[in-house]
Amino acid sequence: MQFTAAQIALMINGKVEGDANAAVSSFGKIEEAQQGQLAFLANPKYEDFLYTTKASIIIINDSLELKQPLEAALIRVPDAYTAFATLLSKYQEIVTQQLTGIQQPSFIADSAQIGANVFIAAFAYIGNNVKIGNNVKIFPGVVLSNNVIVGDNTILHAGVKVYHDCMIGKNVTVHAGTVIGADGFGFAPQADGSFKKVPQIGNVVIEDFVEIGANTTIDRATIGSTLIKAGAKLDNLIQIAHNVEVGHNTVIAAQAGISGSTKLGNNVMIGGQAGIVGHLFIADGSKINGQSGVTKAIKQPNTTVTGTPAYEYTASLRSQALNRNLPDLEKRVKDLEKLVQQLLAEKITT
Amino acid sequence: MQFTAAQIALMINGKVEGDANAAVSSFGKIEEAQQGQLAFLANPKYEDFLYTTKASIIIINDSLELKQPLEAALIRVPDAYTAFATLLSKYQEIVTQQLTGIQQPSFIADSAQIGANVFIAAFAYIGNNVKIGNNVKIFPGVVLSNNVIVGDNTILHAGVKVYHDCMIGKNVTVHAGTVIGADGFGFAPQADGSFKKVPQIGNVVIEDFVEIGANTTIDRATIGSTLIKAGAKLDNLIQIAHNVEVGHNTVIAAQAGISGSTKLGNNVMIGGQAGIVGHLFIADGSKINGQSGVTKAIKQPNTTVTGTPAYEYTASLRSQALNRNLPDLEKRVKDLEKLVQQLLAEKITT
Amino acid sequence: MQFTAAQIALMINGKVEGDANAAVSSFGKIEEAQQGQLAFLANPKYEDFLYTTKASIIIINDSLELKQPLEAALIRVPDAYTAFATLLSKYQEIVTQQLTGIQQPSFIADSAQIGANVFIAAFAYIGNNVKIGNNVKIFPGVVLSNNVIVGDNTILHAGVKVYHDCMIGKNVTVHAGTVIGADGFGFAPQADGSFKKVPQIGNVVIEDFVEIGANTTIDRATIGSTLIKAGAKLDNLIQIAHNVEVGHNTVIAAQAGISGSTKLGNNVMIGGQAGIVGHLFIADGSKINGQSGVTKAIKQPNTTVTGTPAYEYTASLRSQALNRNLPDLEKRVKDLEKLVQQLLAEKITT
Repeated sequence: MQFTAAQIALMINGKVEGDANAAVSSFGKIEEAQQGQLAFLANPKYEDFLYTTKASIIIINDSLELKQPLEAALIRVPDAYTAFATLLSKYQEIVTQQLTGIQQPSFIADSAQIGANVFIAAFAYIGNNVKIGNNVKIFPGVVLSNNVIVGDNTILHAGVKVYHDCMIGKNVTVHAGTVIGADGFGFAPQADGSFKKVPQIGNVVIEDFVEIGANTTIDRATIGSTLIKAGAKLDNLIQIAHNVEVGHNTVIAAQAGISGSTKLGNNVMIGGQAGIVGHLFIADGSKINGQSGVTKAIKQPNTTVTGTPAYEYTASLRSQALNRNLPDLEKRVKDLEKLVQQLLAEKITT
Repeated sequence: MQFTAAQIALMINGKVEGDANAAVSSFGKIEEAQQGQLAFLANPKYEDFLYTTKASIIIINDSLELKQPLEAALIRVPDAYTAFATLLSKYQEIVTQQLTGIQQPSFIADSAQIGANVFIAAFAYIGNNVKIGNNVKIFPGVVLSNNVIVGDNTILHAGVKVYHDCMIGKNVTVHAGTVIGADGFGFAPQADGSFKKVPQIGNVVIEDFVEIGANTTIDRATIGSTLIKAGAKLDNLIQIAHNVEVGHNTVIAAQAGISGSTKLGNNVMIGGQAGIVGHLFIADGSKINGQSGVTKAIKQPNTTVTGTPAYEYTASLRSQALNRNLPDLEKRVKDLEKLVQQLLAEKITT
Repeated sequence: MQFTAAQIALMINGKVEGDANAAVSSFGKIEEAQQGQLAFLANPKYEDFLYTTKASIIIINDSLELKQPLEAALIRVPDAYTAFATLLSKYQEIVTQQLTGIQQPSFIADSAQIGANVFIAAFAYIGNNVKIGNNVKIFPGVVLSNNVIVGDNTILHAGVKVYHDCMIGKNVTVHAGTVIGADGFGFAPQADGSFKKVPQIGNVVIEDFVEIGANTTIDRATIGSTLIKAGAKLDNLIQIAHNVEVGHNTVIAAQAGISGSTKLGNNVMIGGQAGIVGHLFIADGSKINGQSGVTKAIKQPNTTVTGTPAYEYTASLRSQALNRNLPDLEKRVKDLEKLVQQLLAEKITT
């Protein structure tokens, strides 16, 4: 698709300077962009590239004063970065909405209900009684097992596997390879040292406007639901165990793991590779730094913790710094020992 | 499927109180269950819900004394939780056994041997000389490469990929997206700084009654076999490197990683996100706490370790506590330094 | 395939001792090998097995002096291990090259360009304008989205998913379940506590001779490219965030995670489960030990770091040792406190 400067200015509410018919068909960084590409300048650090870039259209801030005339068409807006992001979102929406129809071969059970304007790629598998809302986009190799429900405008990327009875809300995006609804890890120890499986008969419920990264795993509840609340954002390779609850707008970075039955409040932020043990409550607005290991509930909202076992951030930083200086501390103790021995020896001799 | 109170009582060896013809078709938590659902009461904390639940049938302990009459049919057993779990297992067995036949399109090599009562879903790929036992259930998108052997009653969930020549035992469950038999990570450094691949020509052997979670990776051996012994239970997103051995009934929590050639004994328990370096022996019954980093062999059975580098649990806890109090210890040293300086100064002045 | 001792000797430039017509069809460890298998002896520790193995052909060092005559055919070479590895590589090359043709059902867009001698397995999905070089091998369930480019001799194992516009070089191997080009994790916080997605319109570029393990995730750049340079080797379950650069011949072990925009130099080695925060530069030849958490740039080439937060290896080891001995250090401080109190008390009384 090609867009002119005039069309783009309309989309982002900007003013064209230069050739309103200049046209672009893709995006580029200002320092690398070629003819036919659109770039933006937000960071003054990159201003020099404005005069050397080959981009055909450049979005710039209203406030920017040009040092020399430019060949490229300019679009002026109050905030170039925000306008550029808005433009990209609109562009991706257009591209996604154009994707419709059912490719063959795909497998769609007779009892499945499919909404309007849906895309189902080849090798997608739609089981019995699955309900798919309007504008849903299902990429190749997605598996929706029996009784799964998917809300309007949701995008399931290639190879997402959703086990039976799980529910996915509206405007959700799930990236490739993620598994939703596998059995929780529950085994009862037996007298002979072996383990007997505890059946996992709950499900996973993912509310609206959630985004989930690639190759993440969200296990079904033993009974009831593992719950990802509206607006939560999960990165790649995350483990969400059975019966966990993730609060509204909570953000979890890659490779973090949340153990069974832990409840995360709203607006919690969890760093990469952090771990939280089971059956804990984590208060709203908590921040858990990367690689931390949380072993106790966080009851006070807006607490930041770090380390393994995790505790309050500032205290933890101080301990970390001292820990690094342990050789120094040990030397001070050794010096003291010598001095005190000396004082004691003198006391005896005097 | 619907079951009556009389049928369920028979399955779990219980006594019906009330309407033996009351019928249910699904399960619910006692606090949320609706008409037509079966619930159980094991934890006395939830007893109040017994009188408010809408469940049609409730499994309760023999010993429970009712405070008021109930509309629901009751089934009395010695231990309500165990009876409920048993019921669920039987129910899931029935549901799974009913799943048979070969869906289209699937790909089954002419030379593959398929047992009786097998389910092969659409988009499953069965390579040359693959042998599949009786009652095996293969979900959509599973890939069994050439010469793979799968034992009776094994369940391979959606998108499990098994590389050539690997062997999977009887009564094994592998969850969605798990990869068995990818090449071990072996590269020989060359004089020019590049790396030359060491061919990985072994396989993976998974014995009977093993359960493996979702998106886990178990690499094939360089030569010989990476071995998961009978009864082991592995969670999601675990890394098992080449030539590792996992002992009988050993349990590994999510996101743990075991490096090449390490041998885990029997009944070992490994916490989430723990890591073990290569070529170690870990004795029977060892417990490795979550996020620990094990860098030395554990020779003494039933040892518990924690931390990175991991060492004996109680000692490690004491160090952790002191580490947390390092600012306090540092202050004590500073106070001592002042006092000793004072003593020294007085000595000089006297 | 069967090979005789004479044929194998030719392939690895060795000399046959014994029956040049002895034939093998598979490989075995010397201690386990059966008739019809080829084994090698490199490690003198295993020499006793030379006289008990049932292997039909054994590769040994030129320098080895036999203690007794053997039934097996021997092939003598300067370095048995290297010769064996070479043989395996050649064998796997032959097997892989024999794999050609397009299995059905597969999905190949009309606009896709497919090179010579390519293998495309059933259930593979090749999108619009995809370009596939010569000798490429694509296993079942691989998804190549629109505009993906794959260079000559590259192998994509089962279930690899490559998002639109990503580029994969020549002689690359990607193992099963890996996801290349999912959206980077970018969300802008809004005034109401919710998050707005930052469109991710860049791509992933993987250069020649890269190997990537199973279930790893490499996110596309926000703008520009996430870049894996020639010769890099990545293990399983690794997270590579948006706009990361991985240098030439850099090696990353399983479950490590590299946060957004971090640049790894050449010949860097990263241990398992290590994490690196975003926007850092890691100098050439750096070594980051397993489970380390790197929070600061490494400017000095060939630096080794360890711990969380990571710092210089030797210093870190010393602190770790002292940390372990904190109970001892605390006792020394307590002893000092007593002695100093005693000295002070005596001063007062005198």
